[in-house]
This record gives sequence, C-alpha cells and structure tokens, in this order.
Amino acid sequence: METLNLGKEMELKKKFRSLRTLMQKKGLSAYILPNTDPHLSEYKAEHWQIIKWLSGFTGAGGQLVVTQEKVGLWVGGTESLQAEKELQGTPIKIFKKGKHKIPTAVEWLCEQDVTKVGYNSKLFSISTIREMKNKFSEHNKTLESHVLLPLIWKNRPPLPPYPIYLHDVKFTGKSTSEKLGEIREVMHDEQADHYLLTTLDDIAWTFNIRGHDVKCWPVPICYGVISPEKAHLFIKEEKVPNEEKKVLEEVGIEIHPYNSIVTHLKKLGEGESILFDPKKTSKWLFDSIPDQSKTIEKTPAIATKKKAIKNPTEIKNMKKCLIRDGVALLKFFRWLETNVTRGEITELSAAEKLKEFQEEQENFVEPSFPSIVAYKEHAAMMHYVPSSKNNSELKSDGFFLIDSGGQYFDGTTDITRTIPLGNISKKKKREFTLVLKGHIQLALAKFLKGTKGVNLDILARKPIWNAGIDYKCGTGHGVGFFLNVHENPPGINQDLSSDTEFEEQMITTIEPGIYKPGEYGIRIENMFLTVEDTVTDFGEFMRFEPISFCPISIDAIDPKLLTKEEKNWLNNYHERVFEVLSPYLDKSEKKWLKKKTRKI
Amino acid sequence: METLNLGKEMELKKKFRSLRTLMQKKGLSAYILPNTDPHLSEYKAEHWQIIKWLSGFTGAGGQLVVTQEKVGLWVGGTESLQAEKELQGTPIKIFKKGKHKIPTAVEWLCEQDVTKVGYNSKLFSISTIREMKNKFSEHNKTLESHVLLPLIWKNRPPLPPYPIYLHDVKFTGKSTSEKLGEIREVMHDEQADHYLLTTLDDIAWTFNIRGHDVKCWPVPICYGVISPEKAHLFIKEEKVPNEEKKVLEEVGIEIHPYNSIVTHLKKLGEGESILFDPKKTSKWLFDSIPDQSKTIEKTPAIATKKKAIKNPTEIKNMKKCLIRDGVALLKFFRWLETNVTRGEITELSAAEKLKEFQEEQENFVEPSFPSIVAYKEHAAMMHYVPSSKNNSELKSDGFFLIDSGGQYFDGTTDITRTIPLGNISKKKKREFTLVLKGHIQLALAKFLKGTKGVNLDILARKPIWNAGIDYKCGTGHGVGFFLNVHENPPGINQDLSSDTEFEEQMITTIEPGIYKPGEYGIRIENMFLTVEDTVTDFGEFMRFEPISFCPISIDAIDPKLLTKEEKNWLNNYHERVFEVLSPYLDKSEKKWLKKKTRKI
Repeated sequence: METLNLGKEMELKKKFRSLRTLMQKKGLSAYILPNTDPHLSEYKAEHWQIIKWLSGFTGAGGQLVVTQEKVGLWVGGTESLQAEKELQGTPIKIFKKGKHKIPTAVEWLCEQDVTKVGYNSKLFSISTIREMKNKFSEHNKTLESHVLLPLIWKNRPPLPPYPIYLHDVKFTGKSTSEKLGEIREVMHDEQADHYLLTTLDDIAWTFNIRGHDVKCWPVPICYGVISPEKAHLFIKEEKVPNEEKKVLEEVGIEIHPYNSIVTHLKKLGEGESILFDPKKTSKWLFDSIPDQSKTIEKTPAIATKKKAIKNPTEIKNMKKCLIRDGVALLKFFRWLETNVTRGEITELSAAEKLKEFQEEQENFVEPSFPSIVAYKEHAAMMHYVPSSKNNSELKSDGFFLIDSGGQYFDGTTDITRTIPLGNISKKKKREFTLVLKGHIQLALAKFLKGTKGVNLDILARKPIWNAGIDYKCGTGHGVGFFLNVHENPPGINQDLSSDTEFEEQMITTIEPGIYKPGEYGIRIENMFLTVEDTVTDFGEFMRFEPISFCPISIDAIDPKLLTKEEKNWLNNYHERVFEVLSPYLDKSEKKWLKKKTRKI
Repeated sequence: METLNLGKEMELKKKFRSLRTLMQKKGLSAYILPNTDPHLSEYKAEHWQIIKWLSGFTGAGGQLVVTQEKVGLWVGGTESLQAEKELQGTPIKIFKKGKHKIPTAVEWLCEQDVTKVGYNSKLFSISTIREMKNKFSEHNKTLESHVLLPLIWKNRPPLPPYPIYLHDVKFTGKSTSEKLGEIREVMHDEQADHYLLTTLDDIAWTFNIRGHDVKCWPVPICYGVISPEKAHLFIKEEKVPNEEKKVLEEVGIEIHPYNSIVTHLKKLGEGESILFDPKKTSKWLFDSIPDQSKTIEKTPAIATKKKAIKNPTEIKNMKKCLIRDGVALLKFFRWLETNVTRGEITELSAAEKLKEFQEEQENFVEPSFPSIVAYKEHAAMMHYVPSSKNNSELKSDGFFLIDSGGQYFDGTTDITRTIPLGNISKKKKREFTLVLKGHIQLALAKFLKGTKGVNLDILARKPIWNAGIDYKCGTGHGVGFFLNVHENPPGINQDLSSDTEFEEQMITTIEPGIYKPGEYGIRIENMFLTVEDTVTDFGEFMRFEPISFCPISIDAIDPKLLTKEEKNWLNNYHERVFEVLSPYLDKSEKKWLKKKTRKI
C-alpha cells in the first residue's frame, strides 16, 4: 500500500489547520461536510469537489466531519476500500456506513465533546437539517450555517461555463410543452401554485435541455420554477445561446440569472403555495420561501416521478442505444481476448481501447461514469478507476472486471462483465456461478404491482448468502435517459429507503457481486425494463426484460450449480444477444459471438 | 349468502341513529372508531368489542367511520371476505385496506364534506393522532375527543373481574427482579426516570403475571410504570389475591387502582423524564404527562424488544409445549381420517374434537385464538370460525384447513395444516405444492444479521406469484411465550412496517397460502426459531429452525414441482416429526405417523 508523500502530508495538515482556525473564529467545535453541491448531486463539477480537495478522497459519496482534534470520513460499502487506500497514512478515520454498531456521523458527533456544529446550508437538504437539529437538540448541541471552505480554498476551479443545447424531441419523445402541461396538471391536483425544481437532471428532463457542466452527467447547472402561466429557468445567462433562448421562450420559459433564484422565491406572493422535495431542496433555498405555512413537501417530487417512467420513445431509443453499446463492448472483449496473451495490455490501455470502441458509436457523447477497468484484486474495490499510479498489467490468469457505460443522445447505459483471462480455479468458478444465479433469480422474478426494491433485493442476494458471502452495496439502481446513470427512483436494496413501488416502463440495473479484498471482484450487471407480465384475479404482475446485450462468460460458469430454469434464462438471453448484435458485425465477429453465446 | 333478518336490521339502524344524534349534539360531522381497547390490543375483552356490538362485524381488526349519511368499515386482507359476509345487507361499505387506489379511512374522511371529526382519545395512540391531525389540518378539518359509544351501549358487558396469578420462573426463565433490573439498565442508558408500560402482554411479561381477562390471551387488564426504585402496577385491586400481592411487593412492586394511572402520571415531578412507545400509548394517557418536553419516545419500547428475544428457558419450554401440541394435532388428524368416511363430522364437531385432544395435554390453558376449522370455500376466509349458522358437513372430497393454537403455561402455539379429504384435482395439488414451496423456500433461507421481515417475505411469495396468485396478508408473525399468538416484533410482510431486524432467539411463523374465494383455501404454517447459522468475513448469518411438528400431507403434493433441495427439507422435517412425536404415541399411532412422514 502506498502512503502519502511528505509534500502531500504537509499540504493536508495545512488545509485542516486553516479550517480549524476558521472554525475557532466562528465558535464552532465541529464542522460537517457532505460530498455534494447546492443541487444535492452525486456527480459534481470540480468547483464542488470539496472533500476531494480537502482530504484526497476521490469517491462520489461520503461525509467528512472535522473537530479540533479529529477527522472522520463516513463512506458507504461501495467506496470503503477505495477510501482506505486513498487516505492511508492520513489522520482521517474511516467509518463504514450502515455497518453494525458503527455510529452515523451525527451519532458520532452527539458523543463528542462539541457544542456548536457548523455546516453550509447550501449543501444540506432541509429534511436532513431537521433530523440533525432534532438529534443534536437531544444532546444539547446546536447547528449553525457557516460557509468556510471557499475562504481557504485558493485556486478553486470556477463554476463551469459551458453552453446548453436542446435535446431533440425525436430522442425525448415528449416536447417541453407537453411535459410542462403534465406537470401543471399534477400541480393543480396538489393545489400547488408553484413547483421548485432543484435537481439538475429533473430540470434538464423537464425543459429538454442538456449541458456539459458535470463530467459524465450531461446537465447544465441551474434551478427551475414552474408556475401556472410561466416557467422560469435560473442559469448563468451567457450559457444560453440565442437560438436555444428563443425556443425556450416560445414555450413560456423565462431565463433569469442563476443566483436570482433566491430573490425570486423571496418575492412569492402572500398565500401562494410552493411544492418541492424536502430531501432535494437545500436549507438555504427553503429559508428563502416567505410563507412556509404554504409549502407542499413531496418526496419524490413531480418531475422525479414522471422521469422514472420512461415514455415509449425513450424506451425505443434506449433499446437502440444499448445495442450500439453492446457492439462496442463486444468488439472490445474480442480485441482483448485476441491480444491479452501477447502481453503489454494494462488496465489503462484497455480502458483507452474501450473508449475508442465506444466513441465509434453513433450518438455517443461521453462515458456515463469513469469506466471501472479492474484486474484481480483491484476489482474488489467496487468503484476502482485505473490511474498511472496503480495501473496493472493483464496476464492470462484470474478475473478481469469491466463496468462501463455511455451517455448517448438516445440513452444512458451501464453494464458490467467479469471475464476470466485464462483458466480459473474451481472456487472462482463457483463464486462466478453464484453471482450469475443471483442475477438470474432476480431477472426471473414475477412480482405484483406495488412491490418495492426492498422486497426484491433478497432474490439476487440469496444464492450468495447461502455461501456465507455478501456484497456490501445495493443490487440495482434506476438509470436515466441521457441523464444520471444512478437515477432514483427506483432502487433495489435491503434498505427501507428502497421504498418506491416498481411500475411498468421503469429501467433498472441488476448487479449482484462477490468482492474479496486483496483477491478479486466479480459483478454481472445488465439493464432491465419493467414490463407487464400477466393480469389475474390477484392483481397485475410485472417482470424484468433485459435490454443490455453482451455475452456472459460461459467459461467461468459451473453448469452443475445452475437449475434448469436458470440455464434456460441464460440460453434465451444469449440467443437474444446474438440476434440483436449480429446484424452489426462482420463475419469473423459473428463467428466469435456465436461461440460466446452457445447453449449450455 | 345470508342477509340480515328484519329484527337485526332494525336494531342496527337504531344504534346508528342514536350515535348520529349524539354526534349532532356534539357538533361532530364524523366519528372514527378503531377496533381496540385503551391498551391498543388486538384481542380485547367483550367490554371493548364496540365495532362488533355496533356493526355485527366480528373480526379482530378494522376501523369504522360514521358520518351523518355514510358508514365505512376499513379491513385488512385477512378479514375482508368475513366482513363482506357479516355485513351483507347492511348499508356499511367495506374498504379493503392496502389495496391499490383504495383510500385509507383518513384519506376518505379528507374527501368528505365533514368539518369536525370525533374520536375517543383512549382508543388512539398519540402517534396516530399526530398523523391524523396533520392530515386533517391540510384539509381544514379538526379532530376532537368525545366518548360517545358508552352513552348508547346499554347492557354493555363490564370490565372482566378475574384474579391474576404468578407465572412460575420455571416457565419464564427469568424472575421479575431480573427483568426489572435489565429494564432499569436500559432506562439508565436512555436517561429515562420512568418507563410507562401500556400493552397488556409487556406488563404480564415484565411482572411474570398472567390473567383471564381476555379470551385466548392470558393477560390481566392493567398499566405499569417502572421507576428507579419502585415499580407500579395499576389494576383493580380485588384482582390481586393476597399471596400474589405479597410476592409482587417483595420485589418492589406497588399495587394501585387501575384508573389511578392518570393521577400517577399527573404527579410526575418537574423535569422527570418518562419513556414510552408513542404507537402503543393512548392520546389520553399522553395528555396526563405534565412535562411533555421530557418524554422519550421509543418504538418498540424496552419490554417489547426484550420480550421478542426468547430466553433459553422459554425456548426449551416452547419446544416441549410444541411437541405436546403436535401430539394433540396428530391424534386429531388420525381420528379425522378414520372417521370422515363414515359421515356425520361437521366443522363444529371437528373443532370440538380438536379441543378435546388439546385439553388432554399437560399445561394447556385455552386456545391461543378461535380455531379456524374450515372446509372447502370456508377456508378462503383466512380467519373463518365455524358457528351453528354456517357449519359445513365434511365429505371425502376437497381441502380441509385447520389453523389452531394453544396457550400453555410453557408456551403459545400456532400451526396450520391443509389436508385433502379424498382425492383432489391436479390443479389443487399444484397449488398445494406451490404453497409448500413458498413455505420451504423461506424456511431454507440463510440471512445476514440485520435482515428485516420486509426483505424476507418474497422468498415465500415467489413460487405463488410465479403462478399469478397472491395471498393478501403477511407471511409470518412473532409468537409470544404464553402470551399473544400475534406478537410484534418481528413480522414477515411486504410492508415497510416489517422493519424489525431478525435476531437469534426470536420466534415467528411462516404461513404462505392460496385463497380462492368461493372455492377453497390452502395454508401451511409452522413456527420457527431464528438461530445462528455461520459467521464469516462477511458477517453473521442466521436461519430458521422449525419448532412445530405435524406431518404435511404428502398426498396433496406433486413431487415433480419440488426441487431436490425442497424435497430434502421436507424429508428432514418429516424425519424430525417422527423422532420428536413418536415417544408419546402408541403402536398404532406410531405406524400411522410413519406412513404420514414417509420419504418422498
């Protein structure tokens, strides 16, 4: 394991010293910092990557808590190994969220000798602040908003300047007017005069706009308010080209400066009601609403709910884009198989080659997340991204995991394959087969309308649990349409927060795995569309239709461990893979695919 | 279907007329009535069976809402068929709770032209009232407590007078002092000066007392308060015999009149904190607490949580009592099989015979719920109880379902078997096998510490869902120790409220089913103990150990539908049934059991 070099160590110390001096000045005995931006996003512009700048942890999640003596980073199961690696040698203590007997950041703070806790009200939802205030008041601690980090972050990258563009209705299936009309209908039913949109993908979806402000996430940084007659987009005005401005204005959308969202909210008329999602609206924005007795809080809010149900055009497009994504992957895996024995392929060069194949595809814009190209023990880190510091050379041995996805004008993709580079041990074969069983068991499920992700999760986990193994993350997540690759709702997890009822036309991943720290990682991930299965006296049953296509390594399977039903699913899936991908392949690629999709 | 006779119809009209007149006098446009008592119990003394008296519905659950024009009864899936039958011909509209698009009672009231809604603050938890108040205030409606029913219920049965008795430590495994000591430790950690116990089984468990006040539930009607030095039992004083009083006083328990709980709470010292479960404490009691800033709300509260983890003595006793219960059932089923072909057996006479066999068993006190003895279509009503009005004669044909349980000094039991009385159709065989598959699939589960009932439920439901069928109830519930047959936590359900993490030494049922209204009902229910399975790098895994023993009808199984693993479970279970029951059987009974537990 690498440790920090002396220069970095000094720098880290200096940053924390500056922060603590500031905290002292403000009378704060602790400061709590989430890994997000004022839109409460998962993926953020560099401008908002405060935890990365302060601590060196590059994951997308987590919370950092600083007291005068201690620093703690709270991370989920998917990022804990990465955090351990990246923070090795620093005084930052890592807390794995959700683990038995590990306190949450707030619980931990309650037990510390601190009185006043500082936070930035732009970076916390009103709902989180309410919970924290309650908890802190039980322990005679107070919470106070202070913006500290910008004061010590010299050379902070500015907010990104990129122009927006319109997302064509041939892709989106619904015009902006139609979407606004549908949203206003719900507002009417909810007796809401206004609807505040804070999350970047909801705004991009509603207004059919896209941008380049955030890597891997084609959204512009903005706020939105929908009122009965007008809609309002709050965005740096130079980011809206004249042509786009004209089109937006034609459907009643007024453009305002980004920061004027606060004055706009402050000027809401007396008695006017405003609807928003308290889990997605910052304390800072909430405080701008003059009459808080007229707020209507909905989780998820209108656009988030509508966005989750893909329309027929989005579904048609998504399926097409997933075929192209499958073709890119197939070409990549064939190239890899042909060349790995020659040596000289590394994780980084493989990632580069994968990108080349993706970029060849029509409508490709950028990856939907940093590709996880992980050989052997690197794959035990669920979100591992290769770099020149840790780049492994591939050999004809062991598992290689590739989790990649693309942003295409006609969809967003996310797929993982784990392939054996040569012969693998019986134990590895068994574990690969257990992961596959989990994948298939959930893919085979028929479930009643009303079923939630928290109900479904165990179907994928069961074969793995039966072997005394667990994966410390969820089983699946929603996927946006040329938007966030992790789009909520829906979600499939053991957690009670996976409480969204599955509906037809939702799109999710299924991705169980086995992760052995220091050894290897196995994950098999596909995307699925929820479709109607059958309607009986007992209700409406649904099922998952696979919509991502790439062979699953037959050579890594122990067929004795699969049931007949599981084999059937795999054979049908492979038949379909060949059927949809082969029209785009040359003769020798077809031959290769035929072999990879043979019946077992 | 029967309809009400004219006399009953008049009586019903008269009762509702009186209630509506009273409502008018108090300025109430609606009145809402839950099916419970001031201890928020499921099973209640006749004194509190208000909904039964008012409407004729005899189920244990439900909520009745009365406006000047309408009456609605909200019932869960287990009781909806029964309600339809019992309320046939009345103007009472039935709402099936939890069904898609069916409003809750509160949602329905919000849409009605009502302004002030009346309720009895003794019969609603503070937590329900808070939710209702919030919801109503959004719709400009108010809530006001009025006791109305006692004013119109002439000849109301008095509160039951039965004396309490002590539950011997040889059964309970822990003395009252030990239990009080453990509870006080938690109180100390929670900084609670007092702990208010409102639920009858928690009080009976803590103080090791039992009673006869409620049919099928051996508890006395009382309240409890535990303080650092003293504990207080609020109970009609004549119910505590001198000897029992002496024993209780020796461990620091003071006896007070039942109704003095209110004055006791009112006299709490300033700044003294009191812990209680807001979901189990009535609004009426909550209002008696002088300093509401010092309340500590916990769901579930201390005794409820401790009671759910059975101690080794309780487990040992429970296992022994379940063997005796199994012997009674076995004798019953053998008698039935021998005699059914002769004719003349009815549901009622079978129920009578079952009771005889149960009463022969050592330590038997009473049934743990009214036995469900249901032939053919009657079994489609999940909580059907035969009566002279609907008694069916058994024939050598179709399914017969028996769901029975006993209260024994050394445990509480609950078990269901569905048996074919003669040949059954291929379709019935298939459905019986699907229910069995569901039962076994959940029984086979290995699950990580932290898994909740809402996560597990689908394992039992999956084979049934795969056939496009569903059962409209939960899959399992906790069972008390010589206490409530439905003891929460834990629970196994699709519902997010099944959120208790399973722990070792909990006891639950597994009871999937298929219910075909007008045709038949199938349910297979056993009781299970949660035990440790294995501890690995990934955590502590648990599994279910069956602790109730009775053959499952092999003749109703289609073995082709069972996997090898499922057959193994069944064969192992049957082997164990023979092993534990045969020492208590005579030669011919043993021979019969051998056949019933043969390998498949």
